[in-house]
Amino acid sequence: MRLEATTIDIGTSRPLVLLNTFDADELGAHPLDRVRIGWEGETTTGIVKRTDELVEPGIVGVTEPLHHVHGDVGITLAGTPPSVRCVRKKLDDVELGRAELERIVRDVHEHRLSDVELSAFVSAVYANGLSLAETKHLTEAMSGVGQRLQWDRPVVADKHSIGGVAGNCVTPIMVAIVTEAGVTMPKTSSRAVTSPAGTADVMEVLSDVEFSIDEIERIVTDTNGCLVWGGGVDLSPVDDEIIRAENPLSIDPEGLLMASVLSKKQSAGSTNVVIDIPYGEGAKVESLVAARELADDFKRVGDHLEMDVSCAITHGTDPIGRGIGPVLEARDVLAVLEGNGPDSLRLKSLRLAEMLLEHCGVDASATEILDSGKALEQFRTIVAAQGGDPDVESTDLEPGEESTTVRADRAGITSRVDNRQLSDLARRAGAPRDSGAGLVVHRTVGDEVELGDRLYTIHAETESKLEEAVSFADQLEPIRVRSKADALIERR
Amino acid sequence: MRLEATTIDIGTSRPLVLLNTFDADELGAHPLDRVRIGWEGETTTGIVKRTDELVEPGIVGVTEPLHHVHGDVGITLAGTPPSVRCVRKKLDDVELGRAELERIVRDVHEHRLSDVELSAFVSAVYANGLSLAETKHLTEAMSGVGQRLQWDRPVVADKHSIGGVAGNCVTPIMVAIVTEAGVTMPKTSSRAVTSPAGTADVMEVLSDVEFSIDEIERIVTDTNGCLVWGGGVDLSPVDDEIIRAENPLSIDPEGLLMASVLSKKQSAGSTNVVIDIPYGEGAKVESLVAARELADDFKRVGDHLEMDVSCAITHGTDPIGRGIGPVLEARDVLAVLEGNGPDSLRLKSLRLAEMLLEHCGVDASATEILDSGKALEQFRTIVAAQGGDPDVESTDLEPGEESTTVRADRAGITSRVDNRQLSDLARRAGAPRDSGAGLVVHRTVGDEVELGDRLYTIHAETESKLEEAVSFADQLEPIRVRSKADALIERR
Repeated sequence: MRLEATTIDIGTSRPLVLLNTFDADELGAHPLDRVRIGWEGETTTGIVKRTDELVEPGIVGVTEPLHHVHGDVGITLAGTPPSVRCVRKKLDDVELGRAELERIVRDVHEHRLSDVELSAFVSAVYANGLSLAETKHLTEAMSGVGQRLQWDRPVVADKHSIGGVAGNCVTPIMVAIVTEAGVTMPKTSSRAVTSPAGTADVMEVLSDVEFSIDEIERIVTDTNGCLVWGGGVDLSPVDDEIIRAENPLSIDPEGLLMASVLSKKQSAGSTNVVIDIPYGEGAKVESLVAARELADDFKRVGDHLEMDVSCAITHGTDPIGRGIGPVLEARDVLAVLEGNGPDSLRLKSLRLAEMLLEHCGVDASATEILDSGKALEQFRTIVAAQGGDPDVESTDLEPGEESTTVRADRAGITSRVDNRQLSDLARRAGAPRDSGAGLVVHRTVGDEVELGDRLYTIHAETESKLEEAVSFADQLEPIRVRSKADALIERR
Repeated sequence: MRLEATTIDIGTSRPLVLLNTFDADELGAHPLDRVRIGWEGETTTGIVKRTDELVEPGIVGVTEPLHHVHGDVGITLAGTPPSVRCVRKKLDDVELGRAELERIVRDVHEHRLSDVELSAFVSAVYANGLSLAETKHLTEAMSGVGQRLQWDRPVVADKHSIGGVAGNCVTPIMVAIVTEAGVTMPKTSSRAVTSPAGTADVMEVLSDVEFSIDEIERIVTDTNGCLVWGGGVDLSPVDDEIIRAENPLSIDPEGLLMASVLSKKQSAGSTNVVIDIPYGEGAKVESLVAARELADDFKRVGDHLEMDVSCAITHGTDPIGRGIGPVLEARDVLAVLEGNGPDSLRLKSLRLAEMLLEHCGVDASATEILDSGKALEQFRTIVAAQGGDPDVESTDLEPGEESTTVRADRAGITSRVDNRQLSDLARRAGAPRDSGAGLVVHRTVGDEVELGDRLYTIHAETESKLEEAVSFADQLEPIRVRSKADALIERR
């Protein structure tokens, strides 16, 4: 069937082919069927959507990933990509080989799988698990697509946190300390997906974070490190697609988590990596036993990939630092570098930096580098190299002007601080888009509290966002205070 | 956030909410997030799509299922529906309770789950299975939504084939015999989804098949039976949604298969049901052992539902009848009723009709009813009641005029007839949309074949469709002839 192609934006990253119902019937094409599109000697495939309205008969609408398709095109029905058979095999709990995992990764990368098929892969891995061999093959397949950074050095340091802890912006502090100690650490970080601030969002308060590979190489040559947004350089891009299917289900199967983290590190050219595994109620990993198993698996897969991996098991029940949200976290980061700031953030940054330095075989004291002010100086150098103001101080950073403070409605002990609820609340207040929006947390677990004491403060940039956050907060209890006389938590 | 709503058709049955990227960022809404929409005192939920182009800032586009949303509407972020937690529980291999399955079915029915979530449910059931209790609860939940047929009779007969066999149009013959014997059989059938002809497509060659519930009741009152399209009366509609997620993966987990079949039967008011389970290489059930297990499970779930279920295990490796495609199958059906027609179709229809009559406690001979011509007469009565020409004869039915016959390129034995390849080929020729398109199969497994003997004939309604089918046939070997001297099938 020959049709005239036109690009159309229906808000999707999938390569969709919109056919008028009349043409679709003529072709025998059902929703989610694949069609092969041929034009000017080239061919590609897309996924069918039928519409009575968006395109006329004789016209085919293609979405953004197919924007190069144009003019008079030939459309024929195409079969299901072979990787769908591999997905079914995994659903049948059969171990997949290297070539099969490569095929899945390639088809995901080229957007050839529908949401149904991608979700089936993620679900199959969640239900049936991945063997270590599968994890290794998947990691290599994932770092095999997209770009790669290359460094002409024997040791390239990196860190990753598996997440779930609010605040927790240790990365800028670690990079300042580790690069000051002479170890190269070209750090690529993510923006927030479901959290109120990714490291890239926090760093963006202080400097640019979007750079080309050439620019990153220049920054690292000049300063020994960087703190940039990884999404700008297309490292292991399949990861983002997989996360898109995991998020709605709130699942993060271990094999995919490891492949996701380690493929990014491999693509970034890292040799020595410390992975932060926060554990505890409400964190991604809920028990110490599970955290230890995950750490051992990370090290095993790292060995296969010839990457030195160490893991830090950390407290995952409380936020780290006081601020939650881009500006508030950047303020904490600067305050720690200036010699003040929240203890929890200072301590965790120091311990992880020490581990990473030791892991890289460097004999230097993280505490000395921080306390001497050298880390602050080095951080300012990186900020300047990334186009920011090197003279910025923590007191220059102002959160959103609209604010309200939530106070204890009883005296007692802070029995629980819920990371998830705090994150959701900071997002309602506008974070990460409104960089000044977020929370300041005044209490940690175990603190004694009097009636009327401050629990947390909500900051927003507009009155309406503050109102929305406050009314949302009324439905939550992100910081729970129990009376000292309480023994039961709940009766059901 | 307040926006102006407008309906937009982007070829989907999902309740999507298209927001301009600007508004979506302002709201903090990511793709696949849910939003609550409020207008004129009503509220509903939809799934977010972001677009730069399709809607302007200030406008919200809603798809067909939300067509009642209009005017000035309020949009707020909404959480994930609770049934997604139940899906995750099933992925964790935890048995779901009645209320949890009801919640999933309700949310699927109201299109509240995204493709990712729906696929995760189907994948979870495939990977972890459903217990008999879960299957029973799911069946009841599925027949609890949509419409129900009610019959003021103690015995209402029904049949179902789990499918996968080309041709196989036994239903019209069975209905004619069983209703002639005095048993009510109000048969609702499906149209083809992935096959070249559903029973409803075949019957539509001879009469109308789309009727309201009132009209169906009138036809059944007048003739004791009917042969109508079930999709027109919304019986167990969740089934269609689940099939939409199963098809791309070519999976049909046993628990969902049973729930799908039995919920339709329960909604149709059936009391005595015969289920045809074809088995063999390439069929849905590949071994006799698996067929027996499935049959036992069907009977057990039927018991729970107070429905008498019998199962017929049949040959699933060969097509039944000679024709594949609406007109060609209708011709076979009429020919059998006229006392001729392919033996395989005659024999299978008779055996299943005998089973169903016995199962309903009726002492009548199916063979006698067929051979006496009474079944033909009764069939004509139903055709007339459904607005068709009662005097139609098999020789009146002409398949598509464009045809070509594929012949044996060697002498030997027909070693394999591939149902799947024949079905795909008949679809390429235009079936079911072009009702005259399809195949006539000249050989069955075990037939001796001389060089140049006819294997199958392709019929199409247009020259271009015939050409497409012929070039597709060149890549297949739907009927395989092996030399009598061959012992090996393949060397690898």
